[in-house]
Amino acid sequence: MKKHVVIIGGGFGGLQAATHLKYANVDITLIDRRNHHLFQPLLYQVATGALSPADIATPLRSLLKHQKNVRVLLGDVIDIDVQNKRVILRDGKVGYDQLIVAAGAGSSYFGKDQWEKFAPSLKSIEDATEIRRRMLYAFEAAERAADSEAARAWLTFAVIAGGPTGVELAGALAEVAYDAMKHDFRNINPANTRIILVQSRDRVLPTFDPKLSERATAALERLGVEVRTGGRVTNVDGTGITLSMGDEQEFIPARTVLWTAGVAASPLGKVLHEAAGAELDNGGRVIVQSDLSVPGYPDIFVIGDLAHVKQASGEALPGVAQVAIQEGRYVGNLIARRLRGRDLPPFRYHDRGNMATIGRGAAVAEIGRLRLSGWLAWPIWLVIHLMYQADVENRVLVLIQWLWNYVTRKRSALLITERQQPHFSQQISIPAKLATDTGTFPRVR
Amino acid sequence: MKKHVVIIGGGFGGLQAATHLKYANVDITLIDRRNHHLFQPLLYQVATGALSPADIATPLRSLLKHQKNVRVLLGDVIDIDVQNKRVILRDGKVGYDQLIVAAGAGSSYFGKDQWEKFAPSLKSIEDATEIRRRMLYAFEAAERAADSEAARAWLTFAVIAGGPTGVELAGALAEVAYDAMKHDFRNINPANTRIILVQSRDRVLPTFDPKLSERATAALERLGVEVRTGGRVTNVDGTGITLSMGDEQEFIPARTVLWTAGVAASPLGKVLHEAAGAELDNGGRVIVQSDLSVPGYPDIFVIGDLAHVKQASGEALPGVAQVAIQEGRYVGNLIARRLRGRDLPPFRYHDRGNMATIGRGAAVAEIGRLRLSGWLAWPIWLVIHLMYQADVENRVLVLIQWLWNYVTRKRSALLITERQQPHFSQQISIPAKLATDTGTFPRVR
Repeated sequence: MKKHVVIIGGGFGGLQAATHLKYANVDITLIDRRNHHLFQPLLYQVATGALSPADIATPLRSLLKHQKNVRVLLGDVIDIDVQNKRVILRDGKVGYDQLIVAAGAGSSYFGKDQWEKFAPSLKSIEDATEIRRRMLYAFEAAERAADSEAARAWLTFAVIAGGPTGVELAGALAEVAYDAMKHDFRNINPANTRIILVQSRDRVLPTFDPKLSERATAALERLGVEVRTGGRVTNVDGTGITLSMGDEQEFIPARTVLWTAGVAASPLGKVLHEAAGAELDNGGRVIVQSDLSVPGYPDIFVIGDLAHVKQASGEALPGVAQVAIQEGRYVGNLIARRLRGRDLPPFRYHDRGNMATIGRGAAVAEIGRLRLSGWLAWPIWLVIHLMYQADVENRVLVLIQWLWNYVTRKRSALLITERQQPHFSQQISIPAKLATDTGTFPRVR
Repeated sequence: MKKHVVIIGGGFGGLQAATHLKYANVDITLIDRRNHHLFQPLLYQVATGALSPADIATPLRSLLKHQKNVRVLLGDVIDIDVQNKRVILRDGKVGYDQLIVAAGAGSSYFGKDQWEKFAPSLKSIEDATEIRRRMLYAFEAAERAADSEAARAWLTFAVIAGGPTGVELAGALAEVAYDAMKHDFRNINPANTRIILVQSRDRVLPTFDPKLSERATAALERLGVEVRTGGRVTNVDGTGITLSMGDEQEFIPARTVLWTAGVAASPLGKVLHEAAGAELDNGGRVIVQSDLSVPGYPDIFVIGDLAHVKQASGEALPGVAQVAIQEGRYVGNLIARRLRGRDLPPFRYHDRGNMATIGRGAAVAEIGRLRLSGWLAWPIWLVIHLMYQADVENRVLVLIQWLWNYVTRKRSALLITERQQPHFSQQISIPAKLATDTGTFPRVR
């Protein structure tokens, strides 16, 4: 009987593992809660209206349709029965011979879960359309605000944490406010929008070379983003954020707050800890062996954002797409090899570099010993982000929209979509007399 | 002081009225509950995953950004104070000198509102993504169904009513099931999908020439759609529909039911009836005068799907985009003329024809005395639907995706997006042994 490989998660890692088992004599079941693979590195472009969800998401079935030894199941894994080798879904059970856990990570609010509703994070398509809705709604509310103070709070955006996602999000927000929506309003001037990037450490992009952090800061400031380093966020509510710098407290009124600060490994890490005694790191990630398996369980592998893989330096590999891709590929190949009685040397990560883009035409990149920034890094960023798209049509669509956005400075997907009707809260009412561009608008009672 | 024209609704009619007042000496406020104009004729393509929402929706602000005499307000109109000439929003008031009510229509379930949750209709972007979700989810549920009877019910789709939207939706569903998802599943064969188009009258497309109805029926049947005419739907629930043909009752198990049967004018019709004594027709539409104004209120115009405009034949004009566009243009021009002390002759509709598409490469069209069907009508349909898009980028994106879909027989946007996790109801569990393509999948417990 053929061996049955079960893969939990259809992200970068899970998908790579599946495709590298294409010619192995196995049956594969890929289980995901969602029906699509998501190109997460471009999620911030959906959140800021440059791309549509379908441009960066592709159904897993469609990606794997011609690989006949894979079956895709839409399902929610809640437990793993390591004794009987079964994956427990919310509504069923699936037996395995080999298990690859690639369940990824969600967002962490460091114990302050009450902040989540005021400061959404960016992990899924729904997160992105929700952030897009809040961003657009903030401008609409400012346009209808009763006084300039209320308008100012609606026109202030705080992005919490200056890692790659925060930097990219802040840069894209600046382009929306200062470029794409420049002529869209009559009562407010989007040029008055404040975008604040808050970073508790002393520089943005702390995992990059300090020189590149400096360049990124300069590029953000050129775009109009205020970069605030060294301040810790001590409170977030519907009206703004509180920053603490040493003994000083500062309250910044900001109606829209976005959270890119913390990552929490999938709860399946805890499941593996309880079921298989797997050791977890502080972030809840499973500390795996050099072949990416769980100690004592040679048939259970953990890859991607859920895995803690030690480098030669002792540090864990970062939670980025490249790491997940290489780990998925490794485990796929390893299982195929072992079935033929052979083996592979321990997993080794090949660092292909680190990139972040800062708005139109600027990026920073570390590739080996190379440090690039500015317009030169940008086309490289562009090509890499096109090439790693799983789907050819998406590459074409993304490229066309980027070209279009670049030339016209417009954005193609500035849609507010939601079931409920927009409803402005009580304190916003139409002012007695609207100050407009021309000053000629008639009375609005 | 400049006159203030208020337009309620940014659909085809409202948008045309606004743009035709561009050179008039007026200030315009366009109020809409949504931030975007929607190209409704292609909504069924979003519902069936061929296009993305942003391909057919464009922010009103962005369409009108360079027309400086227009202000766009995101707001929900709940009443009209015709005495004091004010539009009452849920959260404010706006005064007007001239009012254009272009609030459109929603869906009607003919008093059976309890059917709505089982049989969603197709009017907004959210409706389209909800239908898309249900369609894709049905295939997922069938793939995981416990027995073949359950799978059959999940693989049966009923589209209620054979007007243009119903015909187009059924044809597109057939293409998804029989073409786009052909290789996507392992337990079920999408070729076994049943798509039933239910029409109470004796033919589909009853507003078209009978010859074209025949051709449309033949084209649908070639695609694999069962066309059931002459049967009245007497019940809809979560398990299927009940059809009544004379004395006979037939229950058809169908997990997915889509509703395109009834149109209900916006509640603002009733508001105008109560406030201005406007007469309504059976569908709740306001019966307007030959200049599209409300009798007794020369400063209030009603256009588009909310207006009942009598033709020479005595019948009302149909609720289609062309009618709304021509009415909007007329009222815009009329107001501009009257401000200059001139007038326009009564509104006259110029029939540009009627079209519906039936899947890939087939359409029916009535253009003047011309009756076209089959592959010849299709490129015409294509060009017209591209040309009437308000936004140039959308034309490009739609064209590329159509070409892509045409060549690859794939669909680009088959995404399930929703906040809640997918959750299969209790009766669906993973069968003890899955029958697969190869019959070799190992035990699934």
